[in-house]
Amino acid sequence: METREPIELLTDLYQLTMAQAYFYSRKLETATFSLFVRSYPANRGYFVCAGLHDVLDYLESFAMDAAAIDYLRSQGLFTHDFLEFLQNLRFTGDVWALPEGQIFFRDEPIVEVTSPIVEAQLVETFIINQINFQSLIATKACRCVHAAAGRSVVDFSLRRTHGIDAGMKVARSSYLAGFSATSNVLAGKHYGIPISGTMAHSFITSFEREIDAFRSYAASFPDNAIFLIDTYDTLAGARKAAEVGKEMAAQGRRLQGVRIDSGDLPQLAIEVRNILDDSGLSNVKIVGSGGLDEYDLAEFDDAQIPYDSYGVGTKMGTSSDASWTDMAYKLVEYAGKPVLKRSPGKVSWPGAKQVFRQRNRRGQLDKDTVGLRGQNITGTEALLTNVMKSGKIVAPLPTLRQSRSRLSGELSQLPDATKKIRNPACYTVEFTPELIALRQAIEQKLTQA
Amino acid sequence: METREPIELLTDLYQLTMAQAYFYSRKLETATFSLFVRSYPANRGYFVCAGLHDVLDYLESFAMDAAAIDYLRSQGLFTHDFLEFLQNLRFTGDVWALPEGQIFFRDEPIVEVTSPIVEAQLVETFIINQINFQSLIATKACRCVHAAAGRSVVDFSLRRTHGIDAGMKVARSSYLAGFSATSNVLAGKHYGIPISGTMAHSFITSFEREIDAFRSYAASFPDNAIFLIDTYDTLAGARKAAEVGKEMAAQGRRLQGVRIDSGDLPQLAIEVRNILDDSGLSNVKIVGSGGLDEYDLAEFDDAQIPYDSYGVGTKMGTSSDASWTDMAYKLVEYAGKPVLKRSPGKVSWPGAKQVFRQRNRRGQLDKDTVGLRGQNITGTEALLTNVMKSGKIVAPLPTLRQSRSRLSGELSQLPDATKKIRNPACYTVEFTPELIALRQAIEQKLTQA
Repeated sequence: METREPIELLTDLYQLTMAQAYFYSRKLETATFSLFVRSYPANRGYFVCAGLHDVLDYLESFAMDAAAIDYLRSQGLFTHDFLEFLQNLRFTGDVWALPEGQIFFRDEPIVEVTSPIVEAQLVETFIINQINFQSLIATKACRCVHAAAGRSVVDFSLRRTHGIDAGMKVARSSYLAGFSATSNVLAGKHYGIPISGTMAHSFITSFEREIDAFRSYAASFPDNAIFLIDTYDTLAGARKAAEVGKEMAAQGRRLQGVRIDSGDLPQLAIEVRNILDDSGLSNVKIVGSGGLDEYDLAEFDDAQIPYDSYGVGTKMGTSSDASWTDMAYKLVEYAGKPVLKRSPGKVSWPGAKQVFRQRNRRGQLDKDTVGLRGQNITGTEALLTNVMKSGKIVAPLPTLRQSRSRLSGELSQLPDATKKIRNPACYTVEFTPELIALRQAIEQKLTQA
Repeated sequence: METREPIELLTDLYQLTMAQAYFYSRKLETATFSLFVRSYPANRGYFVCAGLHDVLDYLESFAMDAAAIDYLRSQGLFTHDFLEFLQNLRFTGDVWALPEGQIFFRDEPIVEVTSPIVEAQLVETFIINQINFQSLIATKACRCVHAAAGRSVVDFSLRRTHGIDAGMKVARSSYLAGFSATSNVLAGKHYGIPISGTMAHSFITSFEREIDAFRSYAASFPDNAIFLIDTYDTLAGARKAAEVGKEMAAQGRRLQGVRIDSGDLPQLAIEVRNILDDSGLSNVKIVGSGGLDEYDLAEFDDAQIPYDSYGVGTKMGTSSDASWTDMAYKLVEYAGKPVLKRSPGKVSWPGAKQVFRQRNRRGQLDKDTVGLRGQNITGTEALLTNVMKSGKIVAPLPTLRQSRSRLSGELSQLPDATKKIRNPACYTVEFTPELIALRQAIEQKLTQA
């Protein structure tokens, strides 16, 4: 697990077998690949871009080491000449991309890679692996933030994320999406994200009496205590928390909050709020957790349930109602010629492209138009920028906080109908006549072939 | 991404705040925590154990380095004395566990950790993170292997897994479950798993003519060619593949297979089989892929669709119909006293436990009984073994291939009704009278308190 393995081998074998076939076919000309999502998962009307930083770091440092080459040689599939070529290979291409935190839609290019075809092909798997997953989670988390309607939301997902890298990227993507903190301490260290957490049920059950657990915790953390009150009986737990909260107040301290993690969460919040208020503890917050997702948060907001903040875990961290997106990375141009794929339900748009975003007078997003890279559409913003040239990152990338601000701004300008948690309206994405004509011309040529 | 970060911080903050509260309450006595799954996700009737090796490696090497301690100090939550205690902390406990590849059921302990409470508490997050995910995928992959009914299945999921660690662990867990290979080259190197892959649509579209792509690939891989035939028109693609297949045969080579990745997969397989057979290529295999899962594989088998093998990706690699299990790690004993939690829907069983498996005369699994660790039930096999003593692994762990064999054997002894892909029968798991009596006694005491 801790062994440093060559990340360049984190690819599908077919990338390498194709590379050898390209090598021997002398197919080493320039290609452009385009990364996009073909369709929306259920209840999604937009996506949030995330994962680009990891991809650019990977491309900039791409180099097969001797251990990687030795392993490939052992497979008996590759020739000496090809392996020598592979060992000297670096990523020398250009990348155009949407920035992290940008909202995007179906069929829009997120990243376009232009390089000798072997290079762009070899890096496909890593690019999809990182951007599909991080964008999936950023999108899910953004929905939670929107549904929470101003209440803070904390990432509690680490134990149920799909492994270590997922735990780290979920913390980052959810912070990018507007979460206020994560429980993941390593993510706090690595990404500079605020960390949050107090106690679990095991802490309570390790004491003979629940109230002793509360008192013990308050003694150790007099300014940061949130008591977990549902271990045995939530209302009895709330009364004991209130008792300790009053003891703390008498010492000039303040109990920060109580957390409810099971049971009838809406009803319990109302009753617990009453217990706290009746004890003069109206400044003690109520945190809700336990299997929550954006659908619950939206319902609780509609019903004015008195939760002040939420811990959201498993369902966000695995995007449980849609654990993947139909993200693809397709060859759109080779040796100066635009190309496309016609497999049923999987048709791609040819050529290097650009996305043009049009806003109305109030700054709200109005519609997007996908066109060819060289086109210009007046009154629109061109969203893809050239982030890597000849294998080098062009300019310092935005910080995580800057990307978080970008998304927050974008989200406020997205039409409410598109942000709906269930059955959102489909945002308009059009294609320029030039792009449509190009696709038709290629299709016609393929039909005649 | 490549920075070596202290994995000991890959934990929830509350593990550390609780640890400090334990430290100051002088609650440093021995605790036992039990890992189990509370309920079955839809259509699941059993689970496959995976992830233990990573957990034992982690426990054996657990040590907070100076960078970890410095980061924790910077948070302003922890005292100097506690941080000093933490820096010297190692995992010194005992672990009882099911071996990898063991089939287990709801409510059964998978892992039990006994150590000073702070240690067992700090490692909770990592233990659940790894065993929940790897067992989830091993279970999903095992369902695919069962549904494929003897056809080989290859892991194609890397691009859509939830990050890097997930991609590696999916390859390993699916091989454990009986997959024949993975497309993930790094997993092949790291775990010694066979790797598999040939070409993508981009390879085809980079050539002017589809048949040129086939010929070029065959020239480079005369003994390992599987042509992807659905880029433009699958039946036309099959005819071109047959043409090149005959050319190869004339040179004494054999086309290994063709792959269909989109469209009406059952109908296309039938027609492609006819095209190949009519060309005298009845030994050329047909590989199916494109959004497949165990539900499709079972249908194809029922309808005798002529696929010879499958590539299974996204839906297996994200366990898309159930992206998590309700796996929990609960304190069951502290300072010699059994404890439990009573939160609604989340009741735990107290005490250190054992699982007793009973087989019928033909060796088929009959029923399991969960009892206390010290109990004995004649005619049954005790499934949990002591794999770690005082922080050290007791004996060499089984190899991946050994665990794969274990599962294959277990699966053949599991009743068919429990293995059904949809609505499986619930396997009988009972509890010993002693365990039931213990739980009742503690509940009664809690009610009186």
